[in-house]
Amino acid sequence: MSDVATSDPIKPVFVDYQATTPCLPEVVEAMLPFFTERFHNPQSDHPSGEEAMDAVEEARRDVAALIGAASPREIIFTSGATESNNWALRGIAGSPRRRGRHFVTSQIEHFSVTQPMKSLEQQGFEVTYVAVDADGVVDPASVAGALRDDTALVSMIHASNEIGVIEPLAEVGRICRDAGAPFHVDASNTVGTIPFDVRSINADLVTVSPHLFYGPKGVGALYCRRGVRVAPLLEGGVQEDGRRAGTENVPAIVGFGRACAIAAREMEARMGHLIPLRDALLDGVRDLEGVRVTGHLTQRLPNHVSCVVDHVESESLLLALAMGPAIFAASGTACSGREQKRSPVLEAIGIGAGLDSGSLVFGLGIDTTAEDVARILRELPKAIAQLRALSPLA
Amino acid sequence: MSDVATSDPIKPVFVDYQATTPCLPEVVEAMLPFFTERFHNPQSDHPSGEEAMDAVEEARRDVAALIGAASPREIIFTSGATESNNWALRGIAGSPRRRGRHFVTSQIEHFSVTQPMKSLEQQGFEVTYVAVDADGVVDPASVAGALRDDTALVSMIHASNEIGVIEPLAEVGRICRDAGAPFHVDASNTVGTIPFDVRSINADLVTVSPHLFYGPKGVGALYCRRGVRVAPLLEGGVQEDGRRAGTENVPAIVGFGRACAIAAREMEARMGHLIPLRDALLDGVRDLEGVRVTGHLTQRLPNHVSCVVDHVESESLLLALAMGPAIFAASGTACSGREQKRSPVLEAIGIGAGLDSGSLVFGLGIDTTAEDVARILRELPKAIAQLRALSPLA
Repeated sequence: MSDVATSDPIKPVFVDYQATTPCLPEVVEAMLPFFTERFHNPQSDHPSGEEAMDAVEEARRDVAALIGAASPREIIFTSGATESNNWALRGIAGSPRRRGRHFVTSQIEHFSVTQPMKSLEQQGFEVTYVAVDADGVVDPASVAGALRDDTALVSMIHASNEIGVIEPLAEVGRICRDAGAPFHVDASNTVGTIPFDVRSINADLVTVSPHLFYGPKGVGALYCRRGVRVAPLLEGGVQEDGRRAGTENVPAIVGFGRACAIAAREMEARMGHLIPLRDALLDGVRDLEGVRVTGHLTQRLPNHVSCVVDHVESESLLLALAMGPAIFAASGTACSGREQKRSPVLEAIGIGAGLDSGSLVFGLGIDTTAEDVARILRELPKAIAQLRALSPLA
Repeated sequence: MSDVATSDPIKPVFVDYQATTPCLPEVVEAMLPFFTERFHNPQSDHPSGEEAMDAVEEARRDVAALIGAASPREIIFTSGATESNNWALRGIAGSPRRRGRHFVTSQIEHFSVTQPMKSLEQQGFEVTYVAVDADGVVDPASVAGALRDDTALVSMIHASNEIGVIEPLAEVGRICRDAGAPFHVDASNTVGTIPFDVRSINADLVTVSPHLFYGPKGVGALYCRRGVRVAPLLEGGVQEDGRRAGTENVPAIVGFGRACAIAAREMEARMGHLIPLRDALLDGVRDLEGVRVTGHLTQRLPNHVSCVVDHVESESLLLALAMGPAIFAASGTACSGREQKRSPVLEAIGIGAGLDSGSLVFGLGIDTTAEDVARILRELPKAIAQLRALSPLA
């Protein structure tokens, strides 16, 4: 028998945790009873219904505590970050108290912000897209310059899932608050991963996404500061104080709460584990020829490394990494799927991501090891060299 | 020690399965791996991402098979029935191909249809609310009479969760198809419970809700017949062929698919178990003085018994049933919560549900027994008599 037939496949290194994370065992354990014996509808008018409601409210307190909300009532459960982002924008656009028809956002938002913004433009709203520098950083002064008396909302991503940069949103928040412009923060990639406080950031609306910090998919939250009014997106039920209709997804909400409680407890330890691994990978990647790190080097998510590689296609590089050394990474945002398109985020930082350069994103997880990083740094240069040897562009 | 302190609490009889159902063990088992080892994002461009996508597509085929869709591509996963209903209405209202600004619906819809209809009216759309008879049945001729050249959509509930009546939607569907008016069916209470075929009903859009047939909460589907165009509700991702953005809720989708496969296999046996229990309960309830069954007696969900009780408040009756004999029932739709309000559905069938009469809904489940029904029929008259003795109205 040949070596190939008898050798076990090597264990994959998953480094696309920026796309999603597994639920922690403690999260699954917390959810499990709510699928079966504790399955009741929180709106049911009997003791078992009330117990389900109690579980939802406990989770709401855990989410509120993680982000420093003044009250759990400021947390509205949704089906996920995409719904929260869509709702924040459309909810302000549809609010009777809207200041005007002008929106401000950045050039490096997630599609679930940019796409609704485009739809708003088609409906006659005006949108200013604030530029970023070569590291992907928004200048708060640019936001200040974009604000108008009729600015209905400023919406900014807290940290990019494509290039890892963390934006100076405390300053942006202060500027918005001073100007009286409501401020929405897409904190999908930061809440649960790095410290986040709605008060210090002066946020009025915040998108939270637990599946990016070891909680479940299919659930999210929109923090809505007391007094901020958004028109409903899903209508027809009393749930969430009448602000978001639909039978509560009790198991997922319970898992969300548990993931928040664990994140609050373990965040410091997780960051202490991740940052040295991230920096080792960043340093190793920077040393490679024709490879540029994207996003700011230090103002950066603790679990995020991204780069562009000259004269290599993203898809070929991902395939080479997956098929040979079983390194499972990403080329950009999962929400753009497998289509080969230019990334607006890379364009915004001055990188025309065409066929002449491929992009790579490594999302590290709490179980990522120094050996994993070493394997990536051993195998990545080989894969690049192999592909460049085949490329007419190199 | 007293009897009260030592006696075990009696096992509750849950008869509010019209509000939600538990996940079957087989459904939970199917979901479990997708929370942990198979947690990957279906959009991730590596073999584990592809496996997650395969699981989603298998579930899509199971949903399509249950409702007779021509292709799995006609199934779009959503966060639940409320999103599906909201989307069907707003998606047609926002479609560039819309026939006009007129909608038709019935007077006994769920709030997740009536509330968006009211919002559409505020936006200048016109809505015709077709009346029902005293049994809650829509006359297809009334729908025909309501149709206009500019009717953009007809939306009808297939069976009421409040009064159990099953509507003659095959006829309504044929009338709509002949008139060229798109037809949306809120089949939340029927798909998975009774046979349902999108072709025989001539439906263009169908809302499906697995948490009502032993599948998970937080997931649903909108069947969208090929060629029917709806404007997106959630934008900013390639998921669901670009029609509904947001990271796929893989575990819930997998559980949904499994619940559909089980329902297809066991529907006949379930109906055979439920119908005699329903009829025994219906017959017993009809014999009580000052109690009227609501909804049609035979054109009725196999798991649904509902009535109004003269000179008794719903809340008091529910409390008396729950606290004494541990019978956990409902007074109406869970989505109206615990608020004391007149039910538009009861008003539509000529019952002014005020303080002079209380409404009761019993939703039977696949584990409901003849002994449960006997307990209800033993205890209900006692509870009613007790409350009437206290009531100044009786």
